[in-house]
Amino acid sequence: MATKHDIESSRSRGHGLGTLPSTLEWVGDSDGVLRLLDQTLLPHEVHFRDCSSAEHVWEAIRVLCVRGAPAIGVAGAYGLCLGTRAFREEALPAFRDKVSEVAAYLRSCRPTAVNLAWAIDRVCEVAAADTAGSAKETWEAMLREAHRLARDDVDTCRRIGEAGADLIPDGGGVLTHCNAGALATVGCGTALSLMYVAHERGRRFRVYADETRPLLQGARLTAFELDVAGIDVRVLCDGAAASLIASGAVQLVVVGADRVAANGDTANKIGTYGLALAARQHGVPFYVAAPLSTFDLSLASGSEIPIEQRDEDEVRGGFGRHLVPSAVRCHNPAFDVTPAELITGIVTEIGLVQPVTSPRIRGFLGPEA
Amino acid sequence: MATKHDIESSRSRGHGLGTLPSTLEWVGDSDGVLRLLDQTLLPHEVHFRDCSSAEHVWEAIRVLCVRGAPAIGVAGAYGLCLGTRAFREEALPAFRDKVSEVAAYLRSCRPTAVNLAWAIDRVCEVAAADTAGSAKETWEAMLREAHRLARDDVDTCRRIGEAGADLIPDGGGVLTHCNAGALATVGCGTALSLMYVAHERGRRFRVYADETRPLLQGARLTAFELDVAGIDVRVLCDGAAASLIASGAVQLVVVGADRVAANGDTANKIGTYGLALAARQHGVPFYVAAPLSTFDLSLASGSEIPIEQRDEDEVRGGFGRHLVPSAVRCHNPAFDVTPAELITGIVTEIGLVQPVTSPRIRGFLGPEA
Repeated sequence: MATKHDIESSRSRGHGLGTLPSTLEWVGDSDGVLRLLDQTLLPHEVHFRDCSSAEHVWEAIRVLCVRGAPAIGVAGAYGLCLGTRAFREEALPAFRDKVSEVAAYLRSCRPTAVNLAWAIDRVCEVAAADTAGSAKETWEAMLREAHRLARDDVDTCRRIGEAGADLIPDGGGVLTHCNAGALATVGCGTALSLMYVAHERGRRFRVYADETRPLLQGARLTAFELDVAGIDVRVLCDGAAASLIASGAVQLVVVGADRVAANGDTANKIGTYGLALAARQHGVPFYVAAPLSTFDLSLASGSEIPIEQRDEDEVRGGFGRHLVPSAVRCHNPAFDVTPAELITGIVTEIGLVQPVTSPRIRGFLGPEA
Repeated sequence: MATKHDIESSRSRGHGLGTLPSTLEWVGDSDGVLRLLDQTLLPHEVHFRDCSSAEHVWEAIRVLCVRGAPAIGVAGAYGLCLGTRAFREEALPAFRDKVSEVAAYLRSCRPTAVNLAWAIDRVCEVAAADTAGSAKETWEAMLREAHRLARDDVDTCRRIGEAGADLIPDGGGVLTHCNAGALATVGCGTALSLMYVAHERGRRFRVYADETRPLLQGARLTAFELDVAGIDVRVLCDGAAASLIASGAVQLVVVGADRVAANGDTANKIGTYGLALAARQHGVPFYVAAPLSTFDLSLASGSEIPIEQRDEDEVRGGFGRHLVPSAVRCHNPAFDVTPAELITGIVTEIGLVQPVTSPRIRGFLGPEA
């Protein structure tokens, strides 16, 4: 059962973000619901969606009501609890079968971000543990694990920010893409956490936020949360980033990640790869900020990362009006892969992976990884 | 006075574009109007705007009712005729003063595309010629010059297409940015003219059109006119271009230009520079297609090209809804500069400038340039 402390701690993002609505929180006791901030309506409308089934959570992740690799991981963990709650009076073997079934269903929701599978796996391990008693006790332990994942994310985000804050150039410019902020996590973000900690430490800098077509997470979400925190932010079209870098206005590029392969190749929001090429051309350091749960050592390189193809209508319109002639097809990959050699370093909750090489990544994640 | 032949020839774009509305045409005799296709309403609405004053033309160019370097050049030439028509009964010196005044006004409308100043200068030269008789005769000669510029554009576009058509890969993919097509010219375009001629010659290929934020000329205009011509076209977000190139789907990148400096550095729609970096990274040839009127040998390099900064609201919304929080500023340069070393060649109406070097450009443009 969620304690008041659990909920409080998962809400305390800090960094002047007190007025920012929570990305997700469990509301109530064991019979509670997962309350998600509907990010498709931001920045104009703050509306919450209460999920009480795995299907609700699947749909909410699919339509990007909740998005961002760490946040969808935690949402998936709660979704597994919701989807198995009605079976907690069953015998343990039957309950465990249901856990496997719902876990597979939720994992299918979005293919690229590995954090979703990672968090679901954590909850599945609890269900499979020998120490489990009844199905009901097992289910309660699963919910405690989901709460733990939510709390850990707050801590992880903070540590990522502290590990990388000194990269933020005092008096300079930082470019980011999509939203790897508080709205992408339970805590204060990954890439944006560096900015929040640096801001807290008194550094002054300007953030340039790529608007990030097609769904404009940069314009709608990154600009929103940085503005709430009192950090100077400007929005630009994705195509304007290369010449901005060429102009000398940017001293650091930092982005989040959806999956990092064993060699450091990194999948992130479509458009990231082009930024990395422009940064390299102009000698600007290019960092990825991501928790260890984003690494997938089962994949040797980025070419093995599955890339989600999304609905053409996100490109065709998405602003309440179709702007591409209706007979014309659109190409809409949600992610691209930036090769490790273009990445200066990866900021994690236990420090910087730099340079980005396979041995160094293995060293960070430990021999058992 | 515009003859029927003048108007017919400026409309015959060829290439299956018969049903595409004319970008611009002079309608009527000496007391006629400049009829512009309002491109801000495409692809959903085909609406024309009749301009009868220099102010009408200035406004139409400014809001991108007519856009594309060659088209705004011709529109500016007609605008100069419209803005001086009421003074054709004056004495010649007073009339010439008016010509200078209206020319300066129209040149101020958009700073980057040099074709605007170039075309206005051609009409000014007619006004200044010693052979001029009365102001009225001079004005008639100016209008004939504007008609000649419109006709020449049709011919120039066709010759650019013929000079570059063999670059289009049979069975391959071509990536373009913004709209350098029939809608950007009086004729059949610059970059897209290569595609029209290659299509006519039986080549089969797929065009990938960057949507081109903020004003979506790729999604709205390039997709529209290629679809009308029966050419296979797919639209993608600007940020998706680098990974598309990395995937091997693109064998040629070809774009238009707004100004080419003496060393070959080229200003074109914002986002072009990033494409050129991605093309170079993957060994894909990157071509610019532009008439000789786009070259500006008075500028040694691209750093001297003035870059138009446009209204923040184009980034903030532009889809009938503001998507960036209202307190947040936006950065909206209309163009960027691609350095000559990233450009494989420039396709002009008299052939390919390749490699792109100062001596070669001077050789093409002749000693008097």
